[in-house]
Amino acid sequence: MQAEIITIGDEILIGQIVDTNSAFLGKEFNKIGVSVYQITSVQDDKAHILKALKEAEENADIIIITGGLGPTKDDITKQTICEYFNDTLIENKSVLKNVEQIFSKYNAPLLTVNKHQALVPSKSKVLMNKYGTAPGMWMEKNGKVFVSLPGVPYEMKALIKDEVIPLLRSKFKFPYIIHKTLLTYGIGESALADRIEAWEDGLPGFIKLAYLPSLGRVRLRLSGKSNNKETLENELKQQIDLLRPQIEDVFVGYEEDLSIEAVIGKQLTEKEETLSVAESCTGGQIAKAITANAGASKYFKGSIVSYATESKINVLNVPEEDIASKSVVSKEVAETMAVNVRQLFKSDYGISTTGNAGPSKGESDADVGTVWIAIATQSGVHSKEYNFGNLREKVIIRATNKAFEMLQKEILKK
Amino acid sequence: MQAEIITIGDEILIGQIVDTNSAFLGKEFNKIGVSVYQITSVQDDKAHILKALKEAEENADIIIITGGLGPTKDDITKQTICEYFNDTLIENKSVLKNVEQIFSKYNAPLLTVNKHQALVPSKSKVLMNKYGTAPGMWMEKNGKVFVSLPGVPYEMKALIKDEVIPLLRSKFKFPYIIHKTLLTYGIGESALADRIEAWEDGLPGFIKLAYLPSLGRVRLRLSGKSNNKETLENELKQQIDLLRPQIEDVFVGYEEDLSIEAVIGKQLTEKEETLSVAESCTGGQIAKAITANAGASKYFKGSIVSYATESKINVLNVPEEDIASKSVVSKEVAETMAVNVRQLFKSDYGISTTGNAGPSKGESDADVGTVWIAIATQSGVHSKEYNFGNLREKVIIRATNKAFEMLQKEILKK
Repeated sequence: MQAEIITIGDEILIGQIVDTNSAFLGKEFNKIGVSVYQITSVQDDKAHILKALKEAEENADIIIITGGLGPTKDDITKQTICEYFNDTLIENKSVLKNVEQIFSKYNAPLLTVNKHQALVPSKSKVLMNKYGTAPGMWMEKNGKVFVSLPGVPYEMKALIKDEVIPLLRSKFKFPYIIHKTLLTYGIGESALADRIEAWEDGLPGFIKLAYLPSLGRVRLRLSGKSNNKETLENELKQQIDLLRPQIEDVFVGYEEDLSIEAVIGKQLTEKEETLSVAESCTGGQIAKAITANAGASKYFKGSIVSYATESKINVLNVPEEDIASKSVVSKEVAETMAVNVRQLFKSDYGISTTGNAGPSKGESDADVGTVWIAIATQSGVHSKEYNFGNLREKVIIRATNKAFEMLQKEILKK
Repeated sequence: MQAEIITIGDEILIGQIVDTNSAFLGKEFNKIGVSVYQITSVQDDKAHILKALKEAEENADIIIITGGLGPTKDDITKQTICEYFNDTLIENKSVLKNVEQIFSKYNAPLLTVNKHQALVPSKSKVLMNKYGTAPGMWMEKNGKVFVSLPGVPYEMKALIKDEVIPLLRSKFKFPYIIHKTLLTYGIGESALADRIEAWEDGLPGFIKLAYLPSLGRVRLRLSGKSNNKETLENELKQQIDLLRPQIEDVFVGYEEDLSIEAVIGKQLTEKEETLSVAESCTGGQIAKAITANAGASKYFKGSIVSYATESKINVLNVPEEDIASKSVVSKEVAETMAVNVRQLFKSDYGISTTGNAGPSKGESDADVGTVWIAIATQSGVHSKEYNFGNLREKVIIRATNKAFEMLQKEILKK
């Protein structure tokens, strides 16, 4: 069974926003065994939306439409859907009540356009939106399902989880889709492919392999699809058992549906250990990634972003003479930062980064892209130098990933 | 003139990655007067790619294809393009040399599959990739341009800026597209639309208006397109002159092609003033947003992410009795954090956040979503309490935006 996603809004096509809804939808659909055939982003334009709906109906069984449900004139999704289904808009009392409650909560005047949020196609099943005024709308045609949802990510996500997925499950019987992602480290994409070529050629047709290289790591993703869950699981297991001995030296683990920082969070919580961070070139990215996970307060004590050199001296007590003699991007400074932040925050682990993310050389002579990362524990401190290239964004992300990798190795050591 | 973007890769459709390339492309094309008609994300599947190419050729004059150019078997874009253009692959000596240089730099063995990166369609113009092995490829057909680019964001971005845009400019004469975005604050989308309805109805056909609500702000985006730059600029100016008096009480400025934190960075740099941050519930998000901008070291001294309550005491010297009597999410704690971080980092401004991002209540009795934000300057400290709802991600982002807004007001005061 296939789905198609249509995201509506000029703001997507002119690049004013990044469409993050589609990735969320892709993930959620895969979990219930539905493949996404295509994602199509179209303008707030009636003819264009109608064309996309028609094409999607040809390609897929489930069509999810996001965006264009606001109360203003540029939002035309609802009227266009009415036209597509040869339907008319009628007022829905429950939606009207929801709109009224939201406006009274914020003491905002309720205008006619707001009341129009309660107008829905007469043939639609209404999906109540807990976080906003635009309801979701479920339509059916020749056994195919069309669902129109607001484009605001948290409104859309809640509607998918609470309403759309349960309804789809009750309507259809889905095949099983299972992804297994193996993480490798320290080998290039093509060298890896060369090494496992014979194995890859022997994969059965219902299992696909993809190589996902990203900044120092290559993920191998096996995707299988079948109506028989047990057969699929067995076949995937057998294939992985064949593969593992061939990649044992570069294999670092399976990727769960979790980021590495979430996995670290789980491990620290289990071990009842804590972490603090001293960031220079990563500028808060490490702390931000950790605290994006609910429950981080159990294991994350805090971070010091000592961006200016003087802050490393004032706040982290890095000796001024070390900075003068070794430079601010050095083994010594990285290690002192890690040791001191660990002491300051009274944590089990202290990690630090100091480097030059570019674009120009900073208060050190280090080349753009040079980063020292250090880890301090009760038993000591160690560090390593990297060069992450000359693109600022890339340096920050690679340094963050690497710091998490080093930390995870350290946690698993014990 | 219209463009269409085709992004290729199963990883997009299963939601393993968010497609950020398309937003970048949308922005860059708009700058040169090319509208993006549609963004289509398709699978690594020959028939599907061929179908997308055919449809794009019907819709647009410029077709940009990203992804599927890696050396492994799942990457089939190059062969598929060859089939579409009835062409064959030939070895390109410059690309081969580039591949060899990259491999020798990293001391990696050069395999046959890597050498295949130098195979390009015989009819294509090669666009050299400075950051990777897969070249860009430029093909023409009936006056239409097809460009295939690697999906790795920094490789694609460099090829667009250095190669594709200059080539397009030399081949086509583009109309002018101008966007003006007005930022409003403190009024709902529909109340704003109601207020300016007569003005909106009077807009000429070549100027479109969009409302972009986002967490407390509504952006009004005027988009005009014309072959005559001067006429377009004049008309936009006249329309804005008509609009401004109607929204003066809620108008907070024009949005440049810059984030609010980048604008703050420019303002602080000009004034030669500095900033430090004490973050609790925003967990590093504020520091990360600031340091994403090159040159932040000129004005950003650093941040303390005092995530655990004890870190507020140990690291930021918040009196333990204040936390006990007023709670960790309180006016007093927020203000002390801002004052102390400003002193610790010796900066002109100190901003702080303390709150509960959820999902459960933390070490305070404050409701989920409650956030105190404080700003300290030489002349004193002030703070405000907010409630940003009960979705963790939203609370963090809204608190960050609000802190930047409060800071900007403070900077502009002087």
